[in-house]
Amino acid sequence: MKAEILALGSELLTPLRQDTNALWLTDRLLEIGIETVARQTIADDRDALVRGFRVALQRADVVIATGGLGPTEDDLTREAAAEAAGRGLRRDEAYVEFLRDRFAGFGRVMPEVNAKQGDVIEGGTLVKNPRGTAPAQWVELDGRLLFLLPGPPHEMKPLFEGEFLPLLRARAGQRVVKTRVLRIAGMGESDVEQKAAPVYTRFANPRTTILGAAGQVELHLVAEAADDAAAEALIESLAAPLREALPGRIYSEDGRELPAVVADLLAERGLKLAVAESCTAGMLCAALSDAPGASRFLERGFVTYSNAAKVDELGVDAALIEARGAVSEEVARAMARGALRVAGADLGVAVTGVAGPDGGSADKPVGSVHLAIAGALGEHHRLARFPGDRSRVRTQSVRLALELLRRALLGLSQG
Amino acid sequence: MKAEILALGSELLTPLRQDTNALWLTDRLLEIGIETVARQTIADDRDALVRGFRVALQRADVVIATGGLGPTEDDLTREAAAEAAGRGLRRDEAYVEFLRDRFAGFGRVMPEVNAKQGDVIEGGTLVKNPRGTAPAQWVELDGRLLFLLPGPPHEMKPLFEGEFLPLLRARAGQRVVKTRVLRIAGMGESDVEQKAAPVYTRFANPRTTILGAAGQVELHLVAEAADDAAAEALIESLAAPLREALPGRIYSEDGRELPAVVADLLAERGLKLAVAESCTAGMLCAALSDAPGASRFLERGFVTYSNAAKVDELGVDAALIEARGAVSEEVARAMARGALRVAGADLGVAVTGVAGPDGGSADKPVGSVHLAIAGALGEHHRLARFPGDRSRVRTQSVRLALELLRRALLGLSQG
Repeated sequence: MKAEILALGSELLTPLRQDTNALWLTDRLLEIGIETVARQTIADDRDALVRGFRVALQRADVVIATGGLGPTEDDLTREAAAEAAGRGLRRDEAYVEFLRDRFAGFGRVMPEVNAKQGDVIEGGTLVKNPRGTAPAQWVELDGRLLFLLPGPPHEMKPLFEGEFLPLLRARAGQRVVKTRVLRIAGMGESDVEQKAAPVYTRFANPRTTILGAAGQVELHLVAEAADDAAAEALIESLAAPLREALPGRIYSEDGRELPAVVADLLAERGLKLAVAESCTAGMLCAALSDAPGASRFLERGFVTYSNAAKVDELGVDAALIEARGAVSEEVARAMARGALRVAGADLGVAVTGVAGPDGGSADKPVGSVHLAIAGALGEHHRLARFPGDRSRVRTQSVRLALELLRRALLGLSQG
Repeated sequence: MKAEILALGSELLTPLRQDTNALWLTDRLLEIGIETVARQTIADDRDALVRGFRVALQRADVVIATGGLGPTEDDLTREAAAEAAGRGLRRDEAYVEFLRDRFAGFGRVMPEVNAKQGDVIEGGTLVKNPRGTAPAQWVELDGRLLFLLPGPPHEMKPLFEGEFLPLLRARAGQRVVKTRVLRIAGMGESDVEQKAAPVYTRFANPRTTILGAAGQVELHLVAEAADDAAAEALIESLAAPLREALPGRIYSEDGRELPAVVADLLAERGLKLAVAESCTAGMLCAALSDAPGASRFLERGFVTYSNAAKVDELGVDAALIEARGAVSEEVARAMARGALRVAGADLGVAVTGVAGPDGGSADKPVGSVHLAIAGALGEHHRLARFPGDRSRVRTQSVRLALELLRRALLGLSQG
């Protein structure tokens, strides 16, 4: 079974508003094994809409349209869909009465324009919308299924999940599609690919896709099977050898991002952390405190942007900065130790680097970042040379600092 | 003139990859006064593609397709477009020779499959692609224009802007569309609406749209005119009375975000800033150091998440915290003064609040945030009660702290 999704409304074709329904529907359909063959976004123009519905009913077995079910003259979805289907519209008087009563319940008289919200394609079925005046509807056309849904996501989603998804699941023959995301930090995309490809290319199901971002790589494992348990088993049959090919490198398989993984480890072990940041200037602290409950482990942080701040706040030796430079292994280690000592914490972590675009030199080019950990888990240091602009260098620095913490917390090598 | 945009490729219909070309093209077209009537995303299926091109050529005067011009069997754009147009494909042997030479230049023999990249719709014109092997092409079909472009954005954008946009601009009859964005922080969307609507509703051109985000409101002014200067004049005729209706409230009309505006003001005035953060935990420092050159004004920052950190690092009186609570006007002021003094800076700014979801109480509910400024520009304080979840409370706190700094730097009232 193939699907086509239509997002209807002129506002979706301006830069100001973007449709999010179509992507959400694509995901929900894929979970029950229905692939989307095409999507359309169409303005409030009757001829354009009729042609859009017509081609969709040719290309797909399932057509899902969102939007254009309001009471105004711009709301043409019902009329256009009926014309493309070669059927008439019938007014469901019982629904109009229901709507009239609902307006009365709010102490208002239903405007007569709202009556057309009771129009349904011949042979089709209206589905009440508890969150708005526009009902959904669906109709079967020579074995093809056509669904019309209201546009606001908080109205559309519960109607689709509650009413239409069970119907589609039954028709799709119980195929399910499951995805698991394996996340890796501190390795480049090509390094991950080199280790993972010999494993995942042996599997046609699950299919694997690699996605790289700044300082992070994701392996998306997508399995198709008769039910959830079978799909999970297929995924596990690939995830297990991937774990062996990338020992200790996969930080999450359950959707958690790296800051949450590190935060949970710190909280579990009851360790207090102090943070010293130069080039990342607060980003590492901010990431670690994104999730609730950060006070369990985050003692304090120092943004020591100037050299004077490194000396005053962290007790870094001014002569050391003079001799080695603020971006150096020695200063990174001294910052981590200083943060640890001043805060009376269990762990100290420090980042100092050249984020750019200025400040680089021949031996310390833009992208050079020293990271250090001190305290209860021993002392560790890493020098990284990150590619990319200021923003990417800072993002990669935060991710690598978190990965160093994770490895220290789990007793993994820092190699 | 109406346009339709087609994004072609099965990968664009999976959750893993999203098309960004179509939105970019929508914006470029709107700038020259061409509205988009529909967009399609279509999988690599010949029948689906032919139907897609056919309906697009019915709905629009200008059809722009991206993707599917590679050398593989999945690359069906040329064949499908030609079939929908009712024309044949002709092989441009000169282009094939050019491609063969280019491969040779890299010391490689051109695979024979690449020869089909020289195929052009009868009557059409190939346009060389300096960044890839797939050329663009365009053809006129009974007064309609069809453009085929490669999918990778870094190949597509320069080809479209360099080759096709001038051609379309000439056809579109020199109408231009200009947008200016007026940005406001520290006011709610409905407050801005109340002051701005009586002004902007008097104007049909420019059209105005209000967009609200966490702690920020944007007024988008969109003018259509014969040329750039006329469009700018129209925009200014509305911007001027909006400035009067919102005196001192608009922080940017040139695209800059609030952190950049404050950073520029600090650097211009040669003032050094020290930052003390509790609930925002580094976000304010990180925002201020996003742009290059932050060392000109950012002296240092303190993430004093724990009460002990507020006492140790900023010299806040422990008895004061005990008496008033860490989230209080007195402690916010003491944090700002402490950061100022310890850092030897010109200005101190402090944020302390309940970001949630835990930690709220009857008199200090989640979302209560105290902000303070101390130093060369006098002392200021603000208590805010922000709606929303942890992330929104933190984002709004950062924006309001920046707005307080901006107002202090410009000598505007803090009311």
